[in-house]
Parts: sequence; structure tokens; C-alpha cells
Amino acid sequence: MDETTNKYPLLSKIDSPDDLRKLTPTQLPEVCSDIRQMLINSLSSNPGHFASSMGTVELTVALHYVFNTPYDRIVWDVGHQAYGHKLLTGRRDRFDTNRKLNGLSGFPNPDESEYDTFTAGHASNSISAALGMAIASELNHDEPRRNVVAVIGDSAIAGGLAFEGLNNATNVRNNLLIILNDNDMSIDSPVGGLNSYLAHLTTSPGYNNLRDLIYRGLRKAHMIGDKQKGAILRFNNSLKALLSRHQNIFEGLNIRYFGPFDGNDLPTLIQVLNDIKDMRGPRILHLKTKKGKGFAPAESNPALWHAPGKFDAETGVRQADVATDTVKSPKYQDVFGDTLLELARQNPDIVGITAAMASGTSMNIMQAEMPDRVFDVGISEGHAVTFAGGLAKEGKRPFCAIYSSFLQRAYDNIIHDTAILRLPVTFCIDRAGLVGQDGVTHHGLYDMAYMRTIPGVTISSPSDEQMLRNLMFTASKWNDGPFVIRYPRGDGHNVNWKSELKQLPVGRGRKIADGNDVALLSIGPIAYECSIAAGQAEKRGMSVAQYDMIFLKPLDDELLHEVAKKDVPIVTVEDGTSNGGLGTAVTEWMNDHGYARRVIRLGVPDRFVAHGTVDELYKICGIDADSITSTLVDAVKTKNQQK
Amino acid sequence: MDETTNKYPLLSKIDSPDDLRKLTPTQLPEVCSDIRQMLINSLSSNPGHFASSMGTVELTVALHYVFNTPYDRIVWDVGHQAYGHKLLTGRRDRFDTNRKLNGLSGFPNPDESEYDTFTAGHASNSISAALGMAIASELNHDEPRRNVVAVIGDSAIAGGLAFEGLNNATNVRNNLLIILNDNDMSIDSPVGGLNSYLAHLTTSPGYNNLRDLIYRGLRKAHMIGDKQKGAILRFNNSLKALLSRHQNIFEGLNIRYFGPFDGNDLPTLIQVLNDIKDMRGPRILHLKTKKGKGFAPAESNPALWHAPGKFDAETGVRQADVATDTVKSPKYQDVFGDTLLELARQNPDIVGITAAMASGTSMNIMQAEMPDRVFDVGISEGHAVTFAGGLAKEGKRPFCAIYSSFLQRAYDNIIHDTAILRLPVTFCIDRAGLVGQDGVTHHGLYDMAYMRTIPGVTISSPSDEQMLRNLMFTASKWNDGPFVIRYPRGDGHNVNWKSELKQLPVGRGRKIADGNDVALLSIGPIAYECSIAAGQAEKRGMSVAQYDMIFLKPLDDELLHEVAKKDVPIVTVEDGTSNGGLGTAVTEWMNDHGYARRVIRLGVPDRFVAHGTVDELYKICGIDADSITSTLVDAVKTKNQQK
Repeated sequence: MDETTNKYPLLSKIDSPDDLRKLTPTQLPEVCSDIRQMLINSLSSNPGHFASSMGTVELTVALHYVFNTPYDRIVWDVGHQAYGHKLLTGRRDRFDTNRKLNGLSGFPNPDESEYDTFTAGHASNSISAALGMAIASELNHDEPRRNVVAVIGDSAIAGGLAFEGLNNATNVRNNLLIILNDNDMSIDSPVGGLNSYLAHLTTSPGYNNLRDLIYRGLRKAHMIGDKQKGAILRFNNSLKALLSRHQNIFEGLNIRYFGPFDGNDLPTLIQVLNDIKDMRGPRILHLKTKKGKGFAPAESNPALWHAPGKFDAETGVRQADVATDTVKSPKYQDVFGDTLLELARQNPDIVGITAAMASGTSMNIMQAEMPDRVFDVGISEGHAVTFAGGLAKEGKRPFCAIYSSFLQRAYDNIIHDTAILRLPVTFCIDRAGLVGQDGVTHHGLYDMAYMRTIPGVTISSPSDEQMLRNLMFTASKWNDGPFVIRYPRGDGHNVNWKSELKQLPVGRGRKIADGNDVALLSIGPIAYECSIAAGQAEKRGMSVAQYDMIFLKPLDDELLHEVAKKDVPIVTVEDGTSNGGLGTAVTEWMNDHGYARRVIRLGVPDRFVAHGTVDELYKICGIDADSITSTLVDAVKTKNQQK
Repeated sequence: MDETTNKYPLLSKIDSPDDLRKLTPTQLPEVCSDIRQMLINSLSSNPGHFASSMGTVELTVALHYVFNTPYDRIVWDVGHQAYGHKLLTGRRDRFDTNRKLNGLSGFPNPDESEYDTFTAGHASNSISAALGMAIASELNHDEPRRNVVAVIGDSAIAGGLAFEGLNNATNVRNNLLIILNDNDMSIDSPVGGLNSYLAHLTTSPGYNNLRDLIYRGLRKAHMIGDKQKGAILRFNNSLKALLSRHQNIFEGLNIRYFGPFDGNDLPTLIQVLNDIKDMRGPRILHLKTKKGKGFAPAESNPALWHAPGKFDAETGVRQADVATDTVKSPKYQDVFGDTLLELARQNPDIVGITAAMASGTSMNIMQAEMPDRVFDVGISEGHAVTFAGGLAKEGKRPFCAIYSSFLQRAYDNIIHDTAILRLPVTFCIDRAGLVGQDGVTHHGLYDMAYMRTIPGVTISSPSDEQMLRNLMFTASKWNDGPFVIRYPRGDGHNVNWKSELKQLPVGRGRKIADGNDVALLSIGPIAYECSIAAGQAEKRGMSVAQYDMIFLKPLDDELLHEVAKKDVPIVTVEDGTSNGGLGTAVTEWMNDHGYARRVIRLGVPDRFVAHGTVDELYKICGIDADSITSTLVDAVKTKNQQK
């Protein structure tokens, strides 16, 4: 017996859900316990998302026990609740590679397993995708009936896309089952009317107790069961209508509603799922689960334990909470958060807007001191941007902080509700560039390219923390349309960043070093890799002119004329797609200004990039210092070979 | 007395809402009648959106009568309901310039009038924008209180963005008033659970009659009025809860709900608006209006009269319905619609998806024959795309037809829910390029640029109707990710378009003519202007090599090598932004392949373009035949002047 078999006696025998389905119901709690223990052991040393998956252990086991996966489809919304699902679907032995280069993805990934049915990474897409799958199954006349189940959290269901899915769920014949996994908690606390509503649904004890009592009574008396399902459930709904003056929102949308039930109560789950599994038509099952369930520190502070980093599996002490003597450079997000508060203290018109990322963007720093001037709108990036437009139209100076890959959802809002009106909204794009372990759905690669298509938008990226502060200060004074500042996940290299605020000239870059053999242009903190590369190239006898563009739009004409006049190869470097960003802009500029200059565009190539550490991914994409050095050397070698 | 004064005796005296507010309530019906008559007269000869504005005449008059505009803000969602608003706010005398070059915009436009408070053109943004304005007003401590009113239709409120706005309306102190203008009709019939729900709200006669009776009784007895507003309205809500077992969805979201009321009943409107105007907190007022109200033909067929074109103001005969002998070339949308049905007959896996544009895209042709295989999801572009992804994941071949400027709303869905999974979804992008009179919010200028940023997406555009058919056929056989086909609004130049379907080689363009002085490359139907230009240039002694790229991505390497080897100036032409589309791609390609070739990129310049006819706008942007000719001539002149 190997160690795994010892540690997780039942789980270690489950190589696929088929094995799970051979167990008796009484064995399932042990499976849950094994899963929880394995999550604790594994994630304590190989960090990932923790609390969400801990909360859905019973649900995961129940789903695979009741449904015939992979023939039946489970669509996980925001897949970081799906680690248990990975453990049960043949990936247990590889779980220690989770989020590592060439290892398992931290999210469901159809390329990885047939049990992963759809992309999950951006919240709120599961209902629409699962509805498409359920309707396809009807059109395909699948025999036996194929069940499609979407599992969506209470924060994700408040996103506009989820509402569009719900609103369309009853248009066309389908048997979609939506499971609302309500843990009253997104990464931060959930917001919005729908959330209060869900809380209310849960806390109508009179109605719920009575209904449960009757339900259990009828079951006990064998008055309901497989054959009478339809009957009891209709009764159940009428009962609800009778007992509650509150019509359910979901029923208002014509979706039959069941719940709320305790989603960590395995026998109930299995019973309810069996009861409603074969019903016709779209249904929603509302489950209350506890985020972090089964690990006391996570239960008591689920936000902190959303992605806790390394921790001690026994004591629950997070490595991040252990004091160290090293002075670390701050995260970019903290420089942003701190500077935003500083600016907001000076200018009463500054307001902060984010979309369920108050702690992730560190906007909670301003929020703590000025709760009335910070608006966390929940998972609704489109609303965040249009709302910012409304605030700006009435004289406010909104700073809208959203991760790059999520801001993609608001492309039209940026055009329509800020750019056309030339409104002074500052977009602080966090997690721009390769983000590392979260992988393909979370890399922020397209912001420079899509922002550049929009007329009148100023686009910038700081090469270090002090410049981030200065760009924010500059943006706060800017009155000619939206102002974009993009910066990466994680920390930079400056320990002393809290400099005095300076206004920067918009559209002006800076020369870092002069040189005669090759020109190296970059935007953003990737300048750091460029500087190392320039140093390495100089050691090999080359003279490198290095520039930090700072602004992608408008471009610095004077700087570029200087570069062009050198008549040397130009290498551009950006932490973003090379297909439409800085390299493209410089290539266009040289062409438009009549310079025949070869531009070598380094950036993320035009394909999707999986997960790994940022350093590993830089290397793969050829934007680490060594790769840039090679490019510089090659460029000089082939300088005069243009046709 | 001039003619206007004769025709519209009261309206002609209203130069601003201040004038309106000086009238007695009994004079207002005449104002309504004048507005209607002027809309009929004006729009019969200068076409525009008709039925929506006819339905909101009373609402428009009531809003400006009760609220203190422009101090109070009215935010019109999808502004084609706002023509009456334009007539009352100082633009009556210029209304005959509506939608014309340099004339009034067909939508509210803050650059045009201080009464137009926000961009309106893409549905569902009003609640978010107005909420931002209402909260700004709180933060600004505006004194006297500034009211903010969002007016949104029943189709627009079903969009995800509107739901996000509603869901956030109660998070923060504000006095937003949302008016739901429920005419049970978008451009096409509305869809979705919410719509059935709204219909149900309206048709609970027991509850509504009783409530109205009590309301009127109490008013008559002077038991309610200005001072007792709060009381009666609270009573009103409790009454509703008591009388109805249905809790209102809006109240579920914590927004106080009033209605439904008859939105074409002016005295009721004024009374209700006065009653709820000064209440605190977000409120929603549900009005039932009749689209096309006051013009019998429009009342009986509001969809047809949404934008009827020219018509006879007396008889109501639309010019489009008068038979002509001329054989016209078909609209691109009809070629699409007809071909889609043809393909769907051959391939049972083909399904059609659109977002409230079944007639606008002519997907209704397939819908009529195969209602089970066409999905009109209402105004929810994001859902449309993700839903298509779900269908494709289960083996269907979705053709998703959405106007270019609206598809911007689904940029992230395209990346996340189709491209990452390499799903065979065909995006048929209608209204691509300059659309003419609908102006800045409706031009489809960015699709090529933003699509090009997405890995693995094939992007094409046909230069004529037969090629559209062939590209659709090609897409139906394509198995390597999303396939984009973009085509313009309106008709092309081919009378005989119904050719046999041919599969085209993906990524291959075609040479239209050989030549030695300059190379002219285009994509899409703008090839027509290019051919004229090439002819004109040849008459001036130049030899023009003309190419139709057909595919933006992948580019045709062989064709481009041929072009590059000519060593002549290259002129690219596209009906889209020149900032990231074909010109950019060709410039990048020449650079990347080591060719020092000057590329002159013609397209829509990097600024927002207003309304006018397509021909006028082509000229303004320099992509009409004459401008292209000049560019060709200049390019040849300056050929050897590159630095």
C-alpha cells in the first residue's frame, strides 16, 4: 500500500465516477472526507483556490453519484470550485501538478478531460453554455436523455450574462438543471439586490420549515418517490406560493425553483437530485453551502482563504501571515490602492469603482477610509464601466479598477459609454500581461490591442511603481477622454516606491540609454527584462539604445523620429499580444512616417497560452531577458538583409 | 404666421421645456397631438424611427412637464424613442435635418443638446448610466435635489447590462427613477422569461382593478396628495403584497415598483409622476404604451413601422410597399438569410442564433421554415455567443448573426466561450462598416480590428453577394475554430446572386487585375469602389494591380509575396477602422517578411464618425472611388521618396 492509499483509502480507489457510483450511499461521507483531506494536504504545499472547492465537496460527490457523467454534462461556472471534481475524474494522481507548467489547469479544461465540458474562468457563463448544450441534446434526440447541469455561485448569478441565460432558459424546450451554489460569498462579499433577495429566500424560516416538514413527511409515508415526482413538486411549488407572499424571482422567469437546501448535507443532496433529475423543463436548485467547509480557519475567514497561498495543514497558519524580516517590494495593486487613497484625499471628486475585486485590486484601502466613495458593483464589469461613465458625466473622476481579462467584457461599454462622450474615466487595468498559474482564461493579453482600436483613449503603462503613481496623478488631471493605465499582477522591483507625485507629459516616453546598434523599445514593467537584456547585449559588444514608451497612445513622435533616424533595427517588447499592441503601433508609425525600418515585435504570440509561472511563460513567449538578448544579437547580425 | 405655426399651433410656441411648463394641463393633449402630427409629416418624407417615438409622446410631454429639465436628467435608453423629446427641447426647427449629414442625430447626443444627457444607441445602458448620475448628484449634494430618470423599454430591460444596473440600484443611496416603457415590442417581438413575467404583471386584472379603484378613490377623497405621498404609496405596496401572491421581481431586488399604468393616458401619467417624483430611493414605474400610437397603420403593425422608410402621411402607404418594375440587387442580409436556409436544408446540424435581430439580419427566412432551429435570444449579445458555444460544443453548427457594433458587447464571450475551445461557430457580422444615418453608435468599424486580436479566429469578408454565399458554405465545413464573415448594411451591386455554392480556400485572396505601378488591396464590398478607382487611375495612365484579400486572417502569404515583389507602393482599403484592420495586418506582414514597402492604409480614421449617407461618409473618410483614385495617383508620384 502506498502513501496515498493509506491517507485516502476510499478516494484512492476511485479512478473515475463509475467507481464512485459502485459505492453504497453510506460510503460516500468517507469519500467526502478523503477529498477534503487531500485538498488540505495538497493545497497547503501547492497553493491554489481553496475555500470554494472545500465548500462543494458534497455537491461534487452527489453530482457524480446521481448523474451519469461524462454522458451527462456538468458545467462548472468559475471553475475554482471544481478541484474535487478533478480528484474524482481520473486526475487524482496528477493533482500535485495543479496550476504548474504542463500540469493540470486550475480550472475545468475540455482539453484536459472529457468530464470538463466547457471553459470556466470568467464568471456567469455556465447557464448560457449549458443551455446551448441542453438544447443541442434535444435537437440531437439523445437517447437516453442526456442531463445538463450548470453549477453557478451566488455572485456569478448576479452577472448580466447569467441573467440573460436565465431569461432565455424557458424560451425553448430543454431540461437544463441550474444549481445555485449559494455560499453568500464571492472572493469578496457579494453585493446587490439579488443577493439580499437570496438571503431572504433562505431566511424565511416559517415557510421553509413547514415545507421541509411536509416534504419529509410525505416521503416517509411513501407518498412521493420516483413515480410521484411531478405531483409532489407541483404541490411543493403551490405550497410555496400559498405560504409565502413572495413569488420567487426564478419562478417569475418561469424556471421551477427548489430550495434552499443544505448543500453540505449529502443525503439530502442525493435525495433531492434524484427527485428532480428526470423532471422536464428548466429547473433551479438552490443550495446553501459553506465556503471553506471542513477546515476551521477557512470557515471562519473564507475571503482570506479563497486563495490562501501555502499554509500549515495542521495548524492552519498561512505562510503569508508569518512575519519575515525581508523588506519586500510592494505589489503593484497595493501601490495603486495606496495612491488612489492619497489622490482621493486631495480631490473630493475622485471615486473608486470595481467589480467584485475590491481586495484583489487593493481598492479596499480607499474603501476602508471612504466607504461612500468606493463602489464595488459585484461581478458586472459592463455595469461598472457604464456606471463610471454616468458618474463622470456629472463631474466625478472615476477610477475604475478591473483585471485585464475581465475588462474584455466591457469593451463596448468603454466605447459607447465613456469614449464617445470623452469622459474622464481612468481605467486601472490590473493583472495585465501574463498572470501565471491562473492560465489561459486569466492572462491579460488583449487590453492594449483592443483599447488601441478606440478613438480618443489615452493608453499608458508604467515601468515601475513610482511611475504608476505618477500616471495615476496625471490621469486625475486629464480632461480629454478615458485614460488607461495597465500594470501587472504581483510585485515589482522597487522597495522605495512612495515618491512625490509628479504629472507626466501625456504621450511622451523616455530614453533609458543611448546606443548605436539596435533600438530596444518597451512599455510597462517588462522594461526590467529589457534592461537586463540590454546589459547582456552590451557585454557582447553591442550598443543598445533603450526606450520606455510609457504611452501606447498617443505615441511619442519625437522619440520615434529619434529612433528611426538611427537607422538601426528596432526591437519592441510588450507583455501582451504582439498582434495589435506596441509592436504593431510602432510598425505602423514607421511605415506612416516613411521610414523603412525593420521592427521586430516581441510579445505574447498569436495563440492561447496555458498556465505556468510568469518566468516560465516569459521564456516560452520569448520576452524574458535571455530571449530578448538573443533577439537583439540576431537583429544586429541581420541588420542589412532587408529586401 | 408661417406654415409651422399653422400646422402645429401649440408646439410651434414651445422653444424649450420652460415654455411647456407654462401651459395648463388641459393644453397638453394638444401639444401631444401637434407632436404626433409633426412626426407623421416629417418622418413620412425624411425617414427615421417612427413607431417608438409615436408611442412615447405622452410620456415625453409628461416628463418635461413634471420634471425640471435640463436640471433634472432624463436618460433615454435606445434613443429612437426620443424624437418627441427633440421637438420639445429647441430642435423643432431643425428636425427636418434628422439623421442627415451635419443635421440632428437620430439618437440623443450630449454634443447636440444639454437635454440629451448620455449616449443612447446600444440598448440597456440607461439604468447604469443614470444610476451613476444619480449617485454623483448625492455626492455633489446638489441643491435643490436633482432628479434622474432612466426611460427603458421592455426589450432593453431584459439585457444583462440593465439587470446589472437594477441589481446595483439599491446598493447605495440614490433617488433614481426608472421608467419601464413597456410596449411589448422591440424591433421584433420580445423574448424571454422576463417578458412573459411583465405581461403577467399587466394582466392580473383582479389585483390591478382593485388597486386602481382604491387609488382613485383615495385621491378623489383627497386622502392622498402631495403631503401624503409616502403613506399612500407604502399602502399601495402592501396592498399589492396582500392582494397578489406574486412578489414583484423588482421589489425582489429592493426597488419600489409602481404600475402598470397606461403610459398613453396623459392625466394619469402627470399625476403618477408628480406623486412619486420626490420620493426617496430607487423606484420603477411600469408604463404600458402602444408602439405607433396615433397612426393606425403603425398601431396595427408596429414591427413594420419601427423604421418604415418614406410613407404617405395621409394614406399610410409605405413607399417600400409600392410595386416597382426595376429589378434591384438584394440586400446583403437577404442573401445571408436565403443562403442560411439553403445550407440548413442540407445540413441538419446548422442552427441560427440572433439577438433581437431576426428580421434585421433576415434570419427570419430560416425561422419561418425551421422555427425549432432558430434562436432569437432577445437583446443579449453575450448570451447569444456563449449559447452558440454550448450548441457547438455538442456538435451543432451555429450561425450567429449580429450587427457589428452590437457584437462588440460579446468580445469576451467570443474569446472565452468560442475561440479558446476552437468551436465551429460562424459569426455573420451584419451592418459591418459605415452604416449611414444611424451614426456614431451604430457604425460597425471595429470588428476586424478586435477580431484580429483573438487567436485562432478566421476572419473573412466577401466582396459581393455570391462570395457571401460561398463564404457561408465554406464556414459550414470549417472545423478549426470560429469563422467570421462580415458584410455591410444595404444592398450590393449584383442582380444575379443566386449562384451555385462553392467552397473557397481559407486564407486565399484573389487577383482582380494585374499592374505595375501600384498595388491596391481591399477586403469586402469596398472592392467595388476600388475597381472604379483602379479604372480611373488607369485612364490617367497608371497600371494598377488590384487584389481582393477576402481573408483578413489568415493572410494570403502567396498573394502578399507577389505584391511585395512588385516593389511598388501598396494601398489598402477597408470599410472599418484603419487602426488595427487590413492595413495594419498588411503593414505588419511586409515588415515581418523583411520587405521595406510603403503601405498606405485607407479606412475609417481613428476618430468617431457621425451620421450621413454612406456615400457622404465614404467621401469624408477618403474611401470613395474618387478619393482612392487620388491616393493611387499620389502614391505613384511619391513612390521613391521613402527615407
